[in-house]
Amino acid sequence: MATKFFSKRNVNFLLYEVHEVETLVQHSYFADHNRETFDMTIDAATQIAENLMFPFVKDVDKNQPELHDGKVKVHPSIKNYLKAVGESGIIGADFDYENGGAQIPFTITSAVGYILMSANNGMMYIGLTAGGARLIANFGSDELKKNYIENMISGKWQGTMCLTEPQAGSSLSDITSSAEPLEDGTYKIRGQKVFISAGDHDATDNIIHLFLARIKGAPKGTKGISLFVVPKYRLDGTDNDITSMGIYHKLGQKGVPAMHLGFGDRNDDCIGYLLGEPHKGLNYMFQMMNEARIGVGLTGVSITSAAYYAALEYAKERPQSRRLNAKTALDMPQVPIIQHPDVKRMLLFQKSVVEGGLSLLLETAKYFDLSEASDDPEEKENAHLLVELLTPIAKTFPCEYGVKSISDAVQCFGGYGFTEDFPVEQYYRDVRITPIYEGTTGIQSQDLLGRKVMMAGGKTMKLLAQEVGKTIKAASEHSELKKYATLLTESSKQLQEVTMHLLGIAGTGDIERFLADATLYMELFSLNVVAWQWLKQADVAQQKLLIGADDSDFYESKIHTMKYFFHYELPKTQGLATRLMDTEVLTIMTDKEVVM
Amino acid sequence: MATKFFSKRNVNFLLYEVHEVETLVQHSYFADHNRETFDMTIDAATQIAENLMFPFVKDVDKNQPELHDGKVKVHPSIKNYLKAVGESGIIGADFDYENGGAQIPFTITSAVGYILMSANNGMMYIGLTAGGARLIANFGSDELKKNYIENMISGKWQGTMCLTEPQAGSSLSDITSSAEPLEDGTYKIRGQKVFISAGDHDATDNIIHLFLARIKGAPKGTKGISLFVVPKYRLDGTDNDITSMGIYHKLGQKGVPAMHLGFGDRNDDCIGYLLGEPHKGLNYMFQMMNEARIGVGLTGVSITSAAYYAALEYAKERPQSRRLNAKTALDMPQVPIIQHPDVKRMLLFQKSVVEGGLSLLLETAKYFDLSEASDDPEEKENAHLLVELLTPIAKTFPCEYGVKSISDAVQCFGGYGFTEDFPVEQYYRDVRITPIYEGTTGIQSQDLLGRKVMMAGGKTMKLLAQEVGKTIKAASEHSELKKYATLLTESSKQLQEVTMHLLGIAGTGDIERFLADATLYMELFSLNVVAWQWLKQADVAQQKLLIGADDSDFYESKIHTMKYFFHYELPKTQGLATRLMDTEVLTIMTDKEVVM
Repeated sequence: MATKFFSKRNVNFLLYEVHEVETLVQHSYFADHNRETFDMTIDAATQIAENLMFPFVKDVDKNQPELHDGKVKVHPSIKNYLKAVGESGIIGADFDYENGGAQIPFTITSAVGYILMSANNGMMYIGLTAGGARLIANFGSDELKKNYIENMISGKWQGTMCLTEPQAGSSLSDITSSAEPLEDGTYKIRGQKVFISAGDHDATDNIIHLFLARIKGAPKGTKGISLFVVPKYRLDGTDNDITSMGIYHKLGQKGVPAMHLGFGDRNDDCIGYLLGEPHKGLNYMFQMMNEARIGVGLTGVSITSAAYYAALEYAKERPQSRRLNAKTALDMPQVPIIQHPDVKRMLLFQKSVVEGGLSLLLETAKYFDLSEASDDPEEKENAHLLVELLTPIAKTFPCEYGVKSISDAVQCFGGYGFTEDFPVEQYYRDVRITPIYEGTTGIQSQDLLGRKVMMAGGKTMKLLAQEVGKTIKAASEHSELKKYATLLTESSKQLQEVTMHLLGIAGTGDIERFLADATLYMELFSLNVVAWQWLKQADVAQQKLLIGADDSDFYESKIHTMKYFFHYELPKTQGLATRLMDTEVLTIMTDKEVVM
Repeated sequence: MATKFFSKRNVNFLLYEVHEVETLVQHSYFADHNRETFDMTIDAATQIAENLMFPFVKDVDKNQPELHDGKVKVHPSIKNYLKAVGESGIIGADFDYENGGAQIPFTITSAVGYILMSANNGMMYIGLTAGGARLIANFGSDELKKNYIENMISGKWQGTMCLTEPQAGSSLSDITSSAEPLEDGTYKIRGQKVFISAGDHDATDNIIHLFLARIKGAPKGTKGISLFVVPKYRLDGTDNDITSMGIYHKLGQKGVPAMHLGFGDRNDDCIGYLLGEPHKGLNYMFQMMNEARIGVGLTGVSITSAAYYAALEYAKERPQSRRLNAKTALDMPQVPIIQHPDVKRMLLFQKSVVEGGLSLLLETAKYFDLSEASDDPEEKENAHLLVELLTPIAKTFPCEYGVKSISDAVQCFGGYGFTEDFPVEQYYRDVRITPIYEGTTGIQSQDLLGRKVMMAGGKTMKLLAQEVGKTIKAASEHSELKKYATLLTESSKQLQEVTMHLLGIAGTGDIERFLADATLYMELFSLNVVAWQWLKQADVAQQKLLIGADDSDFYESKIHTMKYFFHYELPKTQGLATRLMDTEVLTIMTDKEVVM
């Protein structure tokens, strides 16, 4: 079995050497922090990951929660984990002091999320709790804050996101759950929600649902949706009439129950508390969306990381066949399969996805920190625009390429990869939900092309070009990297051309044609952005090699993997650009519909 | 739940309109046949698929076989299915009369395999039996034939392939199972085999293992391996000392037990019967390899087919959101998701993989029939070369692109696709073994580039170019298709250039560099070959439309899907060619190894 699921060396490299997270403490919001407090947080997470999560990864998968007599029992290790992680202060570490947090940068808690999820993604509970508590912290009344936040960020109470309804999956404008105002200022809640992760279980004392509903008489569509806090048990301990109507049996992430919940279904006695103002629920949700999406991207990269390290370990140990230039030398022992170029290529691919994807996520998280807490208003605004632009990519790339990457991890194991004797079959199942969670790839892609690219009159794209330009300039100064700086320059130019072409279509008002291939545009954009992250890493590595850093193997491997990405992955942009510039319309419904 | 898993209309189109399988009856071997006997075979298979297989697809997956007290119990539906399929004559339908067969073309039994496996790939039993019986029919003594074939092709006895050993997965030269000659001409068998599909179960009365071993004193490597028939029970009913030592729990294809078997482990009393001559075992196996590989390709395309039809059905029924150009028209009802371009694109991708992959497989099967039974010696030889060239592609493309295609089927279902309420999560698991079975993608790719491309002094490639040229010429005559004929011409030229470049490296003797990116070459080649199959289908469809055929919707959809493949998939060759022409070496081990 695998023994490693992430590389601490790599986390430190990305945090401190590449993204220079220590510079954040120059801003007053983070002023109490330093490398030491960051390291303590990372170390606490690593301890929990290694001792309370990773040992149970298979067991949690094999013993999925079941619904019996209206109750959901989850694996006992989850209660222990939630207790420890609650006590450690990790759940609300990036909350402000006022709400019980430690004002740790989101960049650091993102790295923490990566470590925890790569240890055991079936214990995906605290991200939901943190998200719920953060909504209350940001938009709730003092009373709601007082009543809920502390118990949530201490891990005693679970938080959930109750958005999806049976008739309205990705289409939130069509939700029909209702809230009727009562005389005491509370609301009577009615409705059904599906796919509610951690929607009911016995590892915490209470479950606090963040619930979207329409107040009676609200306008149609997204502008009539309000957000409520709906606890499983009210503060006085009364049952709040929420029924677990069903539990989904899933392909993966089996440790987390996905529930079908009925609100007020038994006694019409489910009470909710309005969060913020009426009709602004979706607005509030959208303000939290970037963190949630970065969270799913982290889940994608985490599972991919666990699979990669398992495959790497196996490939170094498993002897099989001889090298291609000595195939018939049967007197020679078989060689470890990492020596076969095809296996090495698959491992480099996985490494490039894990370390490239994680770098992009931490970069985005750092912009997020600056967008929230920079002391410089211009930097703050610019960082905000970059978060908006990069988030759909940071969500999508690690999940979509994670699916491919873990498929290659299975392939590295050969037939064994298909068996439950090794961990990769589970990761192959687990990761498949990530391109669906929190806005499918199709939706992220429409967000990228349809909103983010044109945001602020094109300023967003200009800001990104500037950032990429800085990396290109720095890399150009090393003869070893010059070639790659040039490749990224060319590739950025191509992305620019494709973007202009598509915006030209948008200009004609034909939105359907403009967005029809948004998913391909997302892939094109992602490959560019991850190539940028790789060049940035290589540039730092090259600098360290020049000054004769100890850890030369590590840095050389970084440069090598950058080269892999530029030689094997970046060329995929060619076919994508060809299609995106091509004018043949094949996927849009016409009057004379193609029968399938 | 899904109701359809294949399209009979499409099977008929490919068999009779595109590949003109009826022309085979001009050859004496098939002279007793005609469209009617073909249709009867297809109809018999369809009946079995619909009534005895498809209804159990979930149930067989949910109740995987377990090993208890040395015995393996499989789902009861499997016994019923094997009885019916045995009685139908399907298992040995393409065997010659002498061996109890019906001399039905392999093209027809391939279509049959597709129909059966798309109904329920967890019932993957008879391909193994047919393969084993065929080895006995082709290379066995009269006595072996008399003793085994009839009970195998009537479904009473199971056949298996016992190749893989724990220390020798893909590396057959390293197998160590042994055979010691006894005085009566039989052999004492000792060894362990792993991953033996259907290696033990209770749905047949006996299990007949086709077993690779070294006769004591045999030369090292592949030239010292012999093939044996080793039954679970000897003809007199004696137990033959084969022990079920373990059963693998797998990601998918759970209906078929994968066994770890010990031969002679209990009493050193396991007897085997030499098949053919000593030391020629691998040679015999290789002679059967094309059929086995086409069989795995069919399994890949079958699972992909079942997932595609499930996704298509769902996409036509599931309402969600409005069209992109009317997103805020909330008074309008939600539209079926097939009307969203992103979903339509994913469905066209799946259709292009299923129908393109199946077309390639049937084309290869038809060349196989001609290579075995053409009355014209030159046609026979040419067909043989084309089978050799196309088989690794026909094995790999439907499996590799099947994995991607089914991932898109899951995506079409959104969150529901991740649940066991819908069938696609199972297909996503099932299909993942197919790029590993019967030679991994890496091995197929080395076979293609390292052997097949250079075969017969380049004649093989020339023959393929001629065949592709015929399609291009025919298509060029339709103004509607001219553009695509040109695209395929250009793409073929590019493939030719890449091939010459790689053969140039081979010429330097650096085999490792020559083959390092063989898997990328495979993808490049596959995209070309499948584009050819699509142009061929479109050409036939266009002809039918010109003569005013009834079924114009069907033919128009064929042309539309061809266009999809040329506009969305074929451009992927650009990035692949760029990498394959690129001289940077990144995956070959050097003295200064990159540490990972």
